[in-house]
Formats: sequence, C-alpha cells, structure tokens
Amino acid sequence: MTSTHDTKRGRTAQKRDAIVSEATTIFLRNGFLGTSMDEIAAAAAVSKQTVYKQFGDKESLFREIVDGVSQNSDAIVARITAAFEPDAIDDDALRRALRTAARSYLESVLQARVLSLRRLIIAEAERFPDLALRYYERAPARGIAVLSQCLQPFIDSGVLKADNPRTAAAHFAYLSLSIAQDRALFIPTDLPTDAERERLADAAVRAFVDGYRARA
Amino acid sequence: MTSTHDTKRGRTAQKRDAIVSEATTIFLRNGFLGTSMDEIAAAAAVSKQTVYKQFGDKESLFREIVDGVSQNSDAIVARITAAFEPDAIDDDALRRALRTAARSYLESVLQARVLSLRRLIIAEAERFPDLALRYYERAPARGIAVLSQCLQPFIDSGVLKADNPRTAAAHFAYLSLSIAQDRALFIPTDLPTDAERERLADAAVRAFVDGYRARA
Repeated sequence: MTSTHDTKRGRTAQKRDAIVSEATTIFLRNGFLGTSMDEIAAAAAVSKQTVYKQFGDKESLFREIVDGVSQNSDAIVARITAAFEPDAIDDDALRRALRTAARSYLESVLQARVLSLRRLIIAEAERFPDLALRYYERAPARGIAVLSQCLQPFIDSGVLKADNPRTAAAHFAYLSLSIAQDRALFIPTDLPTDAERERLADAAVRAFVDGYRARA
Repeated sequence: MTSTHDTKRGRTAQKRDAIVSEATTIFLRNGFLGTSMDEIAAAAAVSKQTVYKQFGDKESLFREIVDGVSQNSDAIVARITAAFEPDAIDDDALRRALRTAARSYLESVLQARVLSLRRLIIAEAERFPDLALRYYERAPARGIAVLSQCLQPFIDSGVLKADNPRTAAAHFAYLSLSIAQDRALFIPTDLPTDAERERLADAAVRAFVDGYRARA
C-alpha cells in the first residue's frame, strides 16, 4: 500500500459520494422496492460490500438520501424572505412582494429534481411515514409558516384582514403553486412557460389580495 | 368435467375478479416495480399461468387496474354538479353552492383509496406518462372544467368577475382541497376532522368569493 492515510480517506469519501449520487438517481427513478443494492453498487462501480459497509442497509441509505435532498428547501425559504423586505406596508408593496414570492416559489417547486423527489416521497409515505412527515414539515409546511410571518406586518397594519394568518398564507401558497405543481406531478413534461408563470403569479396575487384586503 | 359452459364462465369471471382485487391492493401498496406476478397469483389463489392468460403481462394488468379505479371520478363530478343547482343567481346562493361543492370535493379526494391511487399514479408518472396524463385529465382537470361551467352563470350575471373562468375554477378547487390533500399525501393518517373540513370549506368560500366578487 503506497497510499497515505489522507488519500485513503479521500478514496473512501469519493466512493461514498459516488454511491450517494447513483443511489439518488436510481431511487428517484425506481422507488424503494424497485431498487436493489446490487444495482447501486454496479452503477457506482464499487462492490456491494462497500455499499453495505458505508451505509448499513438499503433502508438506511434511502433515509440518508431523502433527508439529504430534502434540505434544499432552505433555498426557497431564503427566497420568500428576500421577496418580503418591502419598502412600504401598503397594498402596492404587498402585491409586489407577493408577485416575487410567487415567482420564486414556482421556480423552486417546478425543478425536475424537486418534482421527482416529491413523487418519490409521496409514493413511499405509507412505507416510511416518519420520512414523509419530516419532508412535509421541512418543505411545504415550512414555506407556509415563513410566508405567514411575512404577511403579519400587513395584517397588523390593516392592509390585509386575516383571522387566521396561517390559513391565509396556505391559501396564497396553493393559489400560486397548485395549478402548475399538480399538473407537473402527473405530466412531468408539462412545465409552464415563462409567460404562463407570470400569468399564474399575477392571477394568484390578484385573487389573494382582493380576497383578503381589509375593507371599510 | 361436469361443469356447464356457464359455470365455467362464472369461475373464470370469479378468478378474474380475485386477480383484479388482489393486484389492486398490491400495486397500491408496492408500486409497479415492487409487485410481481407471482405475488399476485399467490394472493388471488390462482396459478401464475392464469394471471398471464387473463391479463397478458404485468404492464397490461397495471394499466387495466389504474384505468379501472380512476373511473370513480364520475362520482365527484356528479356531486359538484348537484351542489350547483342554485335557487338564485346571487352572492348568497353562490356561497351556499360553493360550500356544498367544497365539502363534497374534500370528502371525495380524502378517501384513503383515492389518496393511495393518487400516490401510485404520481409515483409512476415518469414510467407510464400516458396513464398519468389520462388520470389527470379524468380527475383533477375534469373537476375543474365542471366547476368552471358551474361558475359561468354567476360570471354572466355579474356576481363574479373572472376574465378567465378556468383559472377561477382552479383557484377555488385548490383553495378548498390543497391544504388537506397535500398534508394527507405526505401524512396518510392526518385527515381533517369534520370541524376542520367545515373550517377549510368556509375559509375557501370566503377567500374565493371575496377575491372574485364583482365590485362597483
């Protein structure tokens, strides 16, 4: 053995990365039951023993991967928060912030990999309820919670009237997302054009603000 | 052979029903790749040859089953249409009709079997795009199209203002459904109580009608 301790560690890390990368692709395509450790080992060009040694069993590997990929919900949260640094607390500023938030939301959830992950986790929700719950809390529910905080100044100042800010936030999120997201879950190739995204965001903002606007 | 032609046909039909019933359960639980013809044959207490003889191959059986179960979207369409036989074309009648429609919609989509089917079809959308497209057109898109027709008299008479009735109908459908449906897809056991369904339906009607109400 000529390799130093460091390059050995480097090779182990490289193998680990290769396994995670290939396993992610295969799990996203074939689901938990449809994936075998043999297949993952072959795709990552390592021995099956290496896969087992590094990750325990198929379930542990699956859990690690789903938890890993679902962490990218941080990005959407950051983008919603950034949209809500309004220059004023009035109807116009609210509409501008919501339009940016809706566009960011759409960009985030309509990425092919995010849609595939959503399909996979939904598919495995009965087999891995704890994983699906964690994803739900980390992704859709967290987006809504953050949006609810962003709406609060507009509710406090009387621009919006909402007895239940959480429901209001959920209404806005689903008004923005559901038309395109629902369609894309069933029809993977049917992603809205940029013009359609504009239209969806505008329609959501209009329906939401008109619906929740405080009236004299 | 003492059986007449009729009882032979009866036995064949019985076997066929048993195969369809067991295969539905197994596909809904384990997905397409996670299900084998051996397993289906064993669960239906028939030989594997019988399954192949009756259904061709696993893909044909899967297609037949998904197409079969997804036909129950007729029920929801009938219920939406029934909700919209309003006694008047005014704001009150609209709110009453929408509340009934929202409750019916929620009942329909939150059934355990409908949720499982939705999970399965979404999971297999990349493997069987034609099946998923057909389901999307038959179930979510058809509900929205029917709702859009139901809203038309209220738009024509000026109770609602909607440049795009189809988008308005989709907004109402997702305002009513998405909060509970999204949660239930990820957390199968988390179905709203009756009181929560009332609250969800009321909140959707209020946000929608206030958002789309024609104003002087």
